[in-house]
Amino acid sequence: MSESNFEGIVSLTFDVFGTVVDWRTAIVRDGRETGLDLDWHAFALEWRALYQPAMERVRSGEIGWCNLDDLHHMNLDRLLARRGITDLSEDDINHLNRVWHRLDPWPDVPAGLARLKQKYILATLSNGNTALLVNMAKRSGLPWDAVLGAETAGAYKPQPQAYLRTAEMLGLAPERCMMVAAHNGDLAAASAIGFKTAFVPRPAEYGPGQTTDLEPEDEWDVIAENFLDLAGQLGCL
Amino acid sequence: MSESNFEGIVSLTFDVFGTVVDWRTAIVRDGRETGLDLDWHAFALEWRALYQPAMERVRSGEIGWCNLDDLHHMNLDRLLARRGITDLSEDDINHLNRVWHRLDPWPDVPAGLARLKQKYILATLSNGNTALLVNMAKRSGLPWDAVLGAETAGAYKPQPQAYLRTAEMLGLAPERCMMVAAHNGDLAAASAIGFKTAFVPRPAEYGPGQTTDLEPEDEWDVIAENFLDLAGQLGCL
Repeated sequence: MSESNFEGIVSLTFDVFGTVVDWRTAIVRDGRETGLDLDWHAFALEWRALYQPAMERVRSGEIGWCNLDDLHHMNLDRLLARRGITDLSEDDINHLNRVWHRLDPWPDVPAGLARLKQKYILATLSNGNTALLVNMAKRSGLPWDAVLGAETAGAYKPQPQAYLRTAEMLGLAPERCMMVAAHNGDLAAASAIGFKTAFVPRPAEYGPGQTTDLEPEDEWDVIAENFLDLAGQLGCL
Repeated sequence: MSESNFEGIVSLTFDVFGTVVDWRTAIVRDGRETGLDLDWHAFALEWRALYQPAMERVRSGEIGWCNLDDLHHMNLDRLLARRGITDLSEDDINHLNRVWHRLDPWPDVPAGLARLKQKYILATLSNGNTALLVNMAKRSGLPWDAVLGAETAGAYKPQPQAYLRTAEMLGLAPERCMMVAAHNGDLAAASAIGFKTAFVPRPAEYGPGQTTDLEPEDEWDVIAENFLDLAGQLGCL
């Protein structure tokens, strides 16, 4: 697609978990710090596997609004019970739950975002809650212009309202926004309500055995190797 | 108050109009650019005088939620009609209405915020809508960690929900937040629900004839001359 197709874009809206930050490595890192002798890689994948089902309970209306910290905590309690782990204090569990506030960005992210920020409004469009995203950004220097997403929209992706309300809060028509994500499903939902789309694969997100989202599954507006390549393709030097 | 009383503070939440930015001068500046021969200083004060009554219609439930861009537009239409001004196009009126996105910070603000940001989460807690605050910050390089306030809380200050919901979205108890404002009423409302308070007078906000908020009207936790003094009192070098 020629660069002229991007002239109307004002904001880049970012998926965060997996796209901007590596959740798996941080969970392994902080899990080991608990002193529990576990396969923390497997634990991380199992915790993450409970993520969509927990949000689905909110999306479907089975339970009322719960922010992601609370959903993560419910899932963590369940995982610990499943393994019969009873020797973590409530403080330890809370600290481990907040590992999601302490995820590190992929190596290309800081320099890529710095370049993109010169030209675009950079906003999160994440299912993470505001405090989680703000603490994560503060810790790693992620230069968001706006921290938006599920909590401010009152809807979890891929519900259309999550994207529409975020664009509305930015004062922008959907076609003025470009969703940046490592997940085809996120881009499909954003595209369906008019966002432009950029796919940035993160083949290490789930570790060596990853089988999903290794390739673009549709004709996204941009397909970039990483955030530096994205910056280059969008004319941000 | 000794510095130790500030140890628990994690976030500074800022009133924006008047406290961070000078609305009057920008309205005069952009008003003159319309080519209309008016007393733009008087116009600015008159526009601002319609601000609280418009929000009060929302607070009272007389009208449903309207963001501040929309309230400003309704007030601007009213002012123009009152003066019989009919020679501005709808585009001109929209551009003038968005002067609130183009307000400049007081001179001490950029350096003050840069120092405060090293130690605190800096969040807006403004009645301005998200797009307005994001565009303003982007234009002037205001380094907010989070853009929050009336729109994200669904309530206009001084309603308690505006403060409470903002603290909640930051994941903080109210006493972990310090409200920074040039307006005693804003600090009184924040203090009533447990925020710490910092008063920074802006005696030029309303121009030479200003009679309100020249002095602190209660024993606020910090009274600072400007944002550099605030940074100094909070131990941000």
